Amino acid sequence: MPDDAPDGPAAGRPRGSYAKGLARRQEILDRAIEVFARRGSEGTSLRSIAQEIGVSHAALTHYFSSREDLLVEVYKEAERRGDSEHPHADDASPVEIMTASARHNHGVPGLVQLYSTLVAAALEAGHPAATAFATDRFAAVRADLVERVLRDQAAGRMREDVDPDAVASLVIAASDGLQTQWMLDESVPQSEALELLARLLAP
Amino acid sequence: MPDDAPDGPAAGRPRGSYAKGLARRQEILDRAIEVFARRGSEGTSLRSIAQEIGVSHAALTHYFSSREDLLVEVYKEAERRGDSEHPHADDASPVEIMTASARHNHGVPGLVQLYSTLVAAALEAGHPAATAFATDRFAAVRADLVERVLRDQAAGRMREDVDPDAVASLVIAASDGLQTQWMLDESVPQSEALELLARLLAP
Repeated sequence: MPDDAPDGPAAGRPRGSYAKGLARRQEILDRAIEVFARRGSEGTSLRSIAQEIGVSHAALTHYFSSREDLLVEVYKEAERRGDSEHPHADDASPVEIMTASARHNHGVPGLVQLYSTLVAAALEAGHPAATAFATDRFAAVRADLVERVLRDQAAGRMREDVDPDAVASLVIAASDGLQTQWMLDESVPQSEALELLARLLAP
Repeated sequence: MPDDAPDGPAAGRPRGSYAKGLARRQEILDRAIEVFARRGSEGTSLRSIAQEIGVSHAALTHYFSSREDLLVEVYKEAERRGDSEHPHADDASPVEIMTASARHNHGVPGLVQLYSTLVAAALEAGHPAATAFATDRFAAVRADLVERVLRDQAAGRMREDVDPDAVASLVIAASDGLQTQWMLDESVPQSEALELLARLLAP
């Protein structure tokens, strides 16, 4: 049996094997993140990803049911890792959070490409994993930013005459859209535009 | 010879045939726009597009060198048509233009999907037509909006302490990003967020 043979919960193995399966899945995810951070999602079939990270195609499809499923899990894991390595201060403003993300993203263009690929797939029919990922992620980020807007308004750090939901959606949109424009043309004033938005929202 | 056989400039035919080729290309584009407006770009190989619009695969590949090339031309033509049917007033502000686009786009979700697919492809290596399209389109829209910002500032309709380039990039980003969020969740306050941005930019 090859070292990377399927070994997860679906196999109905005892506890030790299940833990081993989780570890193996994590290991595959770790290597896949490196591949995507370097190359983006372009031309990456499950077969070519398996080859590049050095596992069998069977092992990869055991842990990830489809290419879309793997892309979603790679992005979520990379983001979780980024969040734990660079946690946001409790009192960071919405725009500060997005500016920090933009700075971090400049170093991992492959993951930015992967994000935009997932969001584009999410808008099309037939990509349930991407649609669920993008819908849930936007909802979670909006909810976090709404809390921060309310906190900033209560502390007198943000105008009181702006609707928190509208601000949250606007800041996310500005951040995502500026990132896209900057990726295509580095002369686009990405950080200046985010600073402008922060200034406009100041009391 | 089938009715939709290649008949373009590359064939080196006399003038009448060239005009006929252009008309044929336009006819194919018209039908393709209907297909994409209805379905988006999901699962549309050149072969299946040819079948759906009722032309031979050979004819389609004569006029459009690749699927990516066809997608770009379909989007550009649909946008040109939208612009000529609903021209923007000379004195329309940047946010007014984006709000009008958003309203128009709600009626053609397939074209919005196509746009996001093209922009995502543009960020990846290996899609020169999409990359050129997205880079040029962003540059052209930014240039138009910068003019409008300057006009609005001169007329006292916009704050003078904002950089026109930053405003232009920010308005485009907000518009694109809000559209994406709204497509995934119609409870997202798309128009409220655009109105908020307009209000923040007012003198």
